Amino acid sequence: MAYGLARRELRPRVPLRHGEGDKYRLTSIEGLAALSLDALSSVAYGPEAIVLVLIAAGTGALTATLPVTLVIAALLAVLVVSYGQVIAVHPDGGGAYAVAKKDLGPSVSLLAAASLVVDYVLTVTVSLAAGAASLASAFPSLGPHLLAICLIGLALLTAVNLRGVAESARVLMLPTALFVVSILGIVVLGLLRGHPVAVVGTAHPVHATEGLGVLLLLKAFSSGCSALTGVEAIANGVPSFRDPRVRRAQRTELMLGALLGLMLIGMALLIRRDEVAPRGGVTVLAQLTAGAYGTGWPYYATNLIVTLALALAANTSFGGLPVLMSLLARDHRLPHFFGLRAERPVYRWGVVALALLAMLLLIAVDADTHRMIPLFAIGVFIGFSVSQIGLVRHWAGARPPGWLRRAALNGIGAVLTVVAGVVLLATKFLEGAWVVVVIIPLLMLLFSRIQRYYTEVGRELGLGETPPPLSVADSLVIVPVGEVSRLTRHGLQAALSLGHEVVAVAVHADPAKVRTLKASWDRWDPGVRLDVIDSPRRSLVEPLVEYVRRAAEGGRQVAVLIPEVEPLHRRYQLLQNQRGLLLATVLRARTDVVVCVVPYRLGL
Amino acid sequence: MAYGLARRELRPRVPLRHGEGDKYRLTSIEGLAALSLDALSSVAYGPEAIVLVLIAAGTGALTATLPVTLVIAALLAVLVVSYGQVIAVHPDGGGAYAVAKKDLGPSVSLLAAASLVVDYVLTVTVSLAAGAASLASAFPSLGPHLLAICLIGLALLTAVNLRGVAESARVLMLPTALFVVSILGIVVLGLLRGHPVAVVGTAHPVHATEGLGVLLLLKAFSSGCSALTGVEAIANGVPSFRDPRVRRAQRTELMLGALLGLMLIGMALLIRRDEVAPRGGVTVLAQLTAGAYGTGWPYYATNLIVTLALALAANTSFGGLPVLMSLLARDHRLPHFFGLRAERPVYRWGVVALALLAMLLLIAVDADTHRMIPLFAIGVFIGFSVSQIGLVRHWAGARPPGWLRRAALNGIGAVLTVVAGVVLLATKFLEGAWVVVVIIPLLMLLFSRIQRYYTEVGRELGLGETPPPLSVADSLVIVPVGEVSRLTRHGLQAALSLGHEVVAVAVHADPAKVRTLKASWDRWDPGVRLDVIDSPRRSLVEPLVEYVRRAAEGGRQVAVLIPEVEPLHRRYQLLQNQRGLLLATVLRARTDVVVCVVPYRLGL
Repeated sequence: MAYGLARRELRPRVPLRHGEGDKYRLTSIEGLAALSLDALSSVAYGPEAIVLVLIAAGTGALTATLPVTLVIAALLAVLVVSYGQVIAVHPDGGGAYAVAKKDLGPSVSLLAAASLVVDYVLTVTVSLAAGAASLASAFPSLGPHLLAICLIGLALLTAVNLRGVAESARVLMLPTALFVVSILGIVVLGLLRGHPVAVVGTAHPVHATEGLGVLLLLKAFSSGCSALTGVEAIANGVPSFRDPRVRRAQRTELMLGALLGLMLIGMALLIRRDEVAPRGGVTVLAQLTAGAYGTGWPYYATNLIVTLALALAANTSFGGLPVLMSLLARDHRLPHFFGLRAERPVYRWGVVALALLAMLLLIAVDADTHRMIPLFAIGVFIGFSVSQIGLVRHWAGARPPGWLRRAALNGIGAVLTVVAGVVLLATKFLEGAWVVVVIIPLLMLLFSRIQRYYTEVGRELGLGETPPPLSVADSLVIVPVGEVSRLTRHGLQAALSLGHEVVAVAVHADPAKVRTLKASWDRWDPGVRLDVIDSPRRSLVEPLVEYVRRAAEGGRQVAVLIPEVEPLHRRYQLLQNQRGLLLATVLRARTDVVVCVVPYRLGL
Repeated sequence: MAYGLARRELRPRVPLRHGEGDKYRLTSIEGLAALSLDALSSVAYGPEAIVLVLIAAGTGALTATLPVTLVIAALLAVLVVSYGQVIAVHPDGGGAYAVAKKDLGPSVSLLAAASLVVDYVLTVTVSLAAGAASLASAFPSLGPHLLAICLIGLALLTAVNLRGVAESARVLMLPTALFVVSILGIVVLGLLRGHPVAVVGTAHPVHATEGLGVLLLLKAFSSGCSALTGVEAIANGVPSFRDPRVRRAQRTELMLGALLGLMLIGMALLIRRDEVAPRGGVTVLAQLTAGAYGTGWPYYATNLIVTLALALAANTSFGGLPVLMSLLARDHRLPHFFGLRAERPVYRWGVVALALLAMLLLIAVDADTHRMIPLFAIGVFIGFSVSQIGLVRHWAGARPPGWLRRAALNGIGAVLTVVAGVVLLATKFLEGAWVVVVIIPLLMLLFSRIQRYYTEVGRELGLGETPPPLSVADSLVIVPVGEVSRLTRHGLQAALSLGHEVVAVAVHADPAKVRTLKASWDRWDPGVRLDVIDSPRRSLVEPLVEYVRRAAEGGRQVAVLIPEVEPLHRRYQLLQNQRGLLLATVLRARTDVVVCVVPYRLGL
């Protein structure tokens, strides 16, 4: 198949996951539901990550949770304003990859792509692991089975996404609303109560192993930055909004920022006041839940809502990564099959790739959120930085009215996210961030090697040149047969209409069977020569390939025509065809002949 | 592809996993190494399973370990003698499935097949889980990660077996010898010492929840029967022995029985004397190891040897189940592709199926050996019973000299294994054995439904009838093209040699591209008509299928010829071909035309 076709087919439809008409597009509130769950649900692990770092300096150090959170909230504010400008400049959905490709050149776009891949995989794994932890907070007996829960959840998500989800904002409305109400309820009720009404989990003895120094604060900050992941999703999804889409998307981004900031600061206030330390078997969020709602049914309900929100947040990666991979395939930076969609509008290969990567990572870290936090956020901050820097370039190039002010705003955003990214990397390097430092360049190398391969292929195919005139040869069509049946007849008939000469070939080990076959062939007398290859103890495939190879030596155009049973019902598909497929595969790998398959349609 | 061929190709070579010459066949000792690790390694979980049941009646009840073990050892003795006769009657390797098919008819053979499938899967999962537990006994920090360890081990086994293992007895010699020496060393040294030299693990408080009644003893017996799994492996592998193979195999079976019996009774003596109760974080075998060797390096070495032996025992299923599935495929009871081998002598589909089933089960029970013990052994005892009953039938039919004595011996074996099987089922029913009771009939139903389907297909294809004479039509060959290139030329050339009429078809969305294509087509002027289908916003596949469908309405023989890039190096395979494969798949599913692929071989 040729390249022009490829590019055409691979072009993703924008908007990708919503209908065409304005009716199916999002209002601001619907956009919040559809695109912000990833960001909002990170309050389930962000504050906890801060607490887990600070506790190394003893329970007293937990008072530092609030200032650390305030710094993160300030960074959030800059990001939100800055992304408001990204939305205005890239109303077609400026993912970091698209922005980098347009404004910053191929190398930076490779960096953006690699970090996005890492980020999407980690979003799935961190969300699933945090969701499982939340579930186990409600049902402690699930505590020892976190990995199993994560893998089952991953299998469900994969199955749903392979079938293709008609994901609508309406489906996400309710879980998002429940989540926001639950968390804000915890904050408001918790602060009103003055002290926690219930305590859950088993206490750990806390030994302060280090002092509360600058390094520990920086570490807490970088762990807490995991709460900022997902803030970019709205900017990527601008085309899904109803007109005026830029205004609506900007409003949604502001709402997301306000809500996320409120939640984070509120939770930090509660953590400080109640001296919430890590306890066995429950998450920090579960402790805050019990403190505000007690341990009755609202406790269980909230934990379930958090689990659901996190599972849906994991699902957003299944929307995002396969599309990104299809874009990379369109740019010849990933194998072209990542851009293929069959009858369903789903990039199946991308879904499968994401599922496999997430599974490996979950098993490798045994579904422990805290072992993934150091890897997380780095990819996201690379994406943040690339988007901001790209925008600075854009302003400097286009120079619209007020460009200097705008460039300054994005510039501040870029500086802050770069600084934050460097802090993240430096403080978390030995705890796992080095993995990201190794993987991102490897991915970039992979992308560029694949691109080089496809360029070479294009050259070898002589794209853009006029090929020599055609020369036509006679043809010989070989039909492998096993016995005389209607299937055989069907195959020979097709072969006779295609070939100048047709020959049937049977491979047999048993002389008695050969005699039977020859007798029924003579009785039928189809007017086609039958060659029988003796193959004692050998497989069907080997001697047939040998035969075909010899036949192809004569300079004629040789075709092998494989008659195949095609069941009427899909469910029988697995029971047929696989043998012909194997023969076709081996012939294709080892000979240069034309391989044809002629289907014989069954009535069952 | 036709059925005669199928049968030929699917016949497994006997011996399957060893060379042809006598040099490659096994002596008795080598046979013990190659075929008995599955049985021997079950001492790592069998005695533990007894202790875990008896402890319900308090530590005092552990004295019952010895009598229960003696009953199991007596059953082992009967099985060993009885299997000596199986070996004599079925020198070609009488797995329960083959025996049942020959002597007991199709329904019983389905039962045998279903129980063997269950048994093979459980051998993998129980061995891996017990191996992980043994590893965690040596390295307690691995304790919380048993599932992850099992899944990693499973992935390794799967990868190795997909490549095909040149598994030789010599490779297994050393681990088997080390294992036997280690366990016998524990028994001998432990008994000589008079008291344990070290205690490992954390003590559990023991609350007696029931009295030591008959039911508890029966439960302990049925749990302990898991130690007998694998005794049948030597009888299945008779063809692998050097001549006189029957005598050698019988000798090996006796050696296995003696060794296994010694180990079991010796361990029971130690458990009774030292009142070994379940302790946290370590296995019973690890406790006995510490008791005999102390906690120095021999303790770690023994635990590692046990882990290795269990991993290799899990590997035996990867030798067994894919072969059984290929036999079932040959009998049309599983999809035929389970009988396919490509270039490597490996039934890949069977390996993949086993890996998936084992993975699901491990996740479902979270790699807990004790939750799988109730499911285990039932399948094995069905196999035992079927083999014995089949042999009784055989003696009664053939009536050789002394047949009555022989029939009586197998009859006793049959009665004992049936009784044991019923006890197993009854005592373990609610603890999980019901799963097996549900799954085995479902598998039998699946096998017979598949068989019925294939019979129907044979009827519809008119196997054994003489088909009507051939009638030949004119042909139209359609070549999908994307642009003008050497690939396009290659495809058109092949098409011209095959078709009476040839037409090139391009699908394009972009009018500019269409103009370019038409211009370069005219410049080239290959003498073939070019049709361009407009497809704004639609995929390549849909409009092409529509076009082909309309062309096929005329009564002509229509063929679609897809020119495809075939890279020289295997590693580039993934980067090509997938798009043509998709088009071919959709065409095959939705039209009745001939689908041809013509490879264009690249230089890279």
